[in-house]
Amino acid sequence: MGINDMSKSELSAMKKQWDDEYNKFKSQKLALNMARGKPSPEQLDLSMDMLDVLSSKSDLVSESGDDCRNYGLLDGIPEAKKIFSEMIGVSEENIMICGNASLNVMYDLVATGFINGINGNTPWHKLEKVKFLCPVPGYDRHFAICESFGIEMINIPMLESGPDMDMIEKLVSEDESIKGIWCVPQYSNPTGHVYSDETVRRFAALKPKADDFRIIWDNAYCIHHLTDSPKKLLNIFDECTKQGNQDMVYILGSTSKITFSGAGVAVLGASKKNIDQLTKIMGVRIIGYDKINQLRHAKYFGDYNGLLKHMEKHKAIIRPKFQAVLDILEKEIAPLAAGSWTKPEGGYFISFDSISGCAKRIVQLCKEAGVTLTGAGAAFPYGIDPEDKNIRIAPTYPTVEELKTAMEVFCLAVKIASAEKILN
Amino acid sequence: MGINDMSKSELSAMKKQWDDEYNKFKSQKLALNMARGKPSPEQLDLSMDMLDVLSSKSDLVSESGDDCRNYGLLDGIPEAKKIFSEMIGVSEENIMICGNASLNVMYDLVATGFINGINGNTPWHKLEKVKFLCPVPGYDRHFAICESFGIEMINIPMLESGPDMDMIEKLVSEDESIKGIWCVPQYSNPTGHVYSDETVRRFAALKPKADDFRIIWDNAYCIHHLTDSPKKLLNIFDECTKQGNQDMVYILGSTSKITFSGAGVAVLGASKKNIDQLTKIMGVRIIGYDKINQLRHAKYFGDYNGLLKHMEKHKAIIRPKFQAVLDILEKEIAPLAAGSWTKPEGGYFISFDSISGCAKRIVQLCKEAGVTLTGAGAAFPYGIDPEDKNIRIAPTYPTVEELKTAMEVFCLAVKIASAEKILN
Repeated sequence: MGINDMSKSELSAMKKQWDDEYNKFKSQKLALNMARGKPSPEQLDLSMDMLDVLSSKSDLVSESGDDCRNYGLLDGIPEAKKIFSEMIGVSEENIMICGNASLNVMYDLVATGFINGINGNTPWHKLEKVKFLCPVPGYDRHFAICESFGIEMINIPMLESGPDMDMIEKLVSEDESIKGIWCVPQYSNPTGHVYSDETVRRFAALKPKADDFRIIWDNAYCIHHLTDSPKKLLNIFDECTKQGNQDMVYILGSTSKITFSGAGVAVLGASKKNIDQLTKIMGVRIIGYDKINQLRHAKYFGDYNGLLKHMEKHKAIIRPKFQAVLDILEKEIAPLAAGSWTKPEGGYFISFDSISGCAKRIVQLCKEAGVTLTGAGAAFPYGIDPEDKNIRIAPTYPTVEELKTAMEVFCLAVKIASAEKILN
Repeated sequence: MGINDMSKSELSAMKKQWDDEYNKFKSQKLALNMARGKPSPEQLDLSMDMLDVLSSKSDLVSESGDDCRNYGLLDGIPEAKKIFSEMIGVSEENIMICGNASLNVMYDLVATGFINGINGNTPWHKLEKVKFLCPVPGYDRHFAICESFGIEMINIPMLESGPDMDMIEKLVSEDESIKGIWCVPQYSNPTGHVYSDETVRRFAALKPKADDFRIIWDNAYCIHHLTDSPKKLLNIFDECTKQGNQDMVYILGSTSKITFSGAGVAVLGASKKNIDQLTKIMGVRIIGYDKINQLRHAKYFGDYNGLLKHMEKHKAIIRPKFQAVLDILEKEIAPLAAGSWTKPEGGYFISFDSISGCAKRIVQLCKEAGVTLTGAGAAFPYGIDPEDKNIRIAPTYPTVEELKTAMEVFCLAVKIASAEKILN
C-alpha cells in the first residue's frame, strides 16, 4: 500500500515500527559515507601499475622532441593528445592537456571571461550583470564557481532527454547577459541522464544573443559506462561545427575517475580560435602543466583502446554497487510510493526524489544514524532545492556490504520523514 | 683602454676587427639559447631516482591517514609540509603544498584580490585603480600577471641591498591603491642580489595605507646557492610577526629548479588567517593538488637535510657555468668599460647593463648570430627598459662549451653595439 493511501492510524503504527528499526541502527554507531563521488580504494588499485611505467631508466622525451622534465609545451604532449582527443571527440589540434583536475580548468574558463573577456568581448567584471543557466539537479561545484564570481544562476529543469531546450533557446536568444550553461551531457550529475541526439543538435544550433556565450560541456563520465551496450552521445563539437558554432563550446574531460582522483590528467577540447586565446592567457597563469604525469598516462594506456579496456575493470567494481542501491530502493520504497529515483547506465550517482519537503529531514536522520549523504539542496544553485526533495546518492566509495547497511538506514529515513510529513 | 676613451679612428678600427670576428661566428649558423632560466638536462638527471620512489607496490597513504590517490587534503600532505616549511621558514600550520608551479599560485593570489577581495576587502575589480610596486630589473612573468589584470606597475630601483625602501615606505603609506609588491629576495631575478637584514626589517615594518596590501615574497631561489658559505636571508615571516604584520606577506617556493621544472611541487607560506581564506577560495577553484607527486617528493628527500644535499649537486653543475660567463665578461668587457654586471652567489641569472641605449641592439646582434637571449626590456614592466641597457643572462641550460661560444658572441655584440652608439 502506498504511504499516501494509508490511514493515519495505519501510518502511525508503521512509523513506530520504522522508528524502532532506525533506533537499532543508531545504536550501532555507524560511520558510512555516501557524500561524494569518490572512487573506492579497489578502483584506485586498478591503476597502480601506472606508477611503474616511468623509472629512473626511462627516456622522458616526448614524441615532439621536448623533454617532459623541463619547461615548455603548454598545450600538452602529443602522445596524450592522441589518446584523449579520441575520448572527448575532437581532433588533436583541438585539445589541450592540462593539470590534475578539470574543475580547475572550468574555473579558469569562467575566470577568463570575468578577467580578460572571451575573444575580445568585454570582460564580465565590467558588466552590470552576468548570468549562467544551470540544469537542475546538477553538480554543486559548478554552481560554487558561479557563486564565487557573483554570477546569477537560473535553474533549468532536467528532463529525461537533457535540460529543457525550449526554455534554453528562448532565454539565450533574448538575454545578452546570459554567458554560459553548465552541462554534464553523459550520465549527468546526479540524474545519470544522457542527452538525446535532439538535445545535442539543439544545443549546437543555439543562436545566443551574447557573442561570448559558452556551453561548458563537462563530459566527466563519457566512458564511465555501467552497461555493455552504452548509449552513444552525439558529438557536440561536430554538431557545432556544422552550424558554424564551433567557438560556442568548451569540452572537458579527465582521468580523475579513471586513474587517480588527485593525480590524473584533465583535458580541454575547443575550437582552434578558443584554444589559441586560452593558450595565450594560460601562458600568463602557468608555465606549463605536469608533462611527466601526461607521459605516464600516455605510456600506461598506449592508445584509446587501452583506456576503454581499463574502464571495463571499473565497471565490474561499480555495477554491483549501483545494483545494490537500486534493489533496496525497489524493495523498500517502491511499494510505499515514497519517492522516485533514476536508474543510471553510467556515471557516479543516483538521484533520489522524496515526497516534497522531506529531503533535509532524510539527510538529517541519516546523519544522526552515522550515514553521511551529500547535503540536501546541494545539487541546486545556492544550495536551495525549491521542493526540498532531491538527494544525491553516491554509491562508489563504500563496499557493497557497507552500502547495503547505509541504504537500509536511508530507506528507513525516507519512510520516517515521509510519515512525519503526512502525519503533521 | 676604455671604449669611451678611444679616439673615433681607434674605435672605428677596433669595430672593423670586431665585425670580422662577429661575421665568422655568424657563418657558423649557431643555435644557442640563453633566454630562460631552464635547468640543463644534466640537472634534471639528478632527480631521476625520484621516479623509482613510488611503485605499484607502494603504500600511498599519507601520515595523516589520507589516501594520496583519492580526493581530499586540499592544503597538502603533512610529510611534504614538514620538509618545505623548513625550506621557506614558516611552521607547518603556515604552509600549503600546491601544484607543479608557484607562478600559478602567485597568479591565483592576485586573482583572489581581483575577484574575491582579500580578507573581506573590496575586490580589486571594483576599484578605479590598482597598482603594484615592481623592483626593476625584475621577473617578467610577475609583470605579465599584473598586466593581464590591468594593474598599473610602478618601477622601484633595485640597489645592492634590495629595492629602494625609502621609496617603497613613502608610496605604500600614502597611496591606498597600491596593493602589492613583487620580491625575489634571495638571488633576485635577474640581479642575484640578496636583500639585506635592514631591507627585510623595513619590509616587515611597512605601514601600508591599504589593508589588503601584500608582499609577494617569491623565494624561488632560497636554497639555490653557488657558494659554500651563502648569505643568510632574514626570515620575513618572523619579522612580520614581530611587527604584528604577519598577514602582509605571502611566501612562495617551489621545486621547479630542484627536481623537475614541469613536475615539481610549489608551496605557499602565509599566516593562519591568510591560509584559511585561501583554502576556502582554493576549494572552489580546485578539488586538490597532486598528492602523489607530493608524496614522491617527500619520500625522495626524506627530510630538509636531504633537500639541501641534493642542492649541492646542482651547485656543482651550475657554478662552472656562472664562472665561465663571468670570466669572459671580465676578460672581454671589463678592459673596455663597455658595461657592468652582477656577480651572483646563487640563483639563475646574471644581470648585465650595457652603455645606455644598446641593449636592444645587442640582443638583435646575438640573435642574428644564432644566440637567443631574453628580449631586451623583458625585466621591466610593459617590457620597457627606460635606459635600454639591461640584459638578463641565463647560464644554466647550455653546456659550458656552448656557453663559452655564446658569450664570445655576446661580448662581440656588446662591443659592436657600443661602438655604433659612440660613433653615431
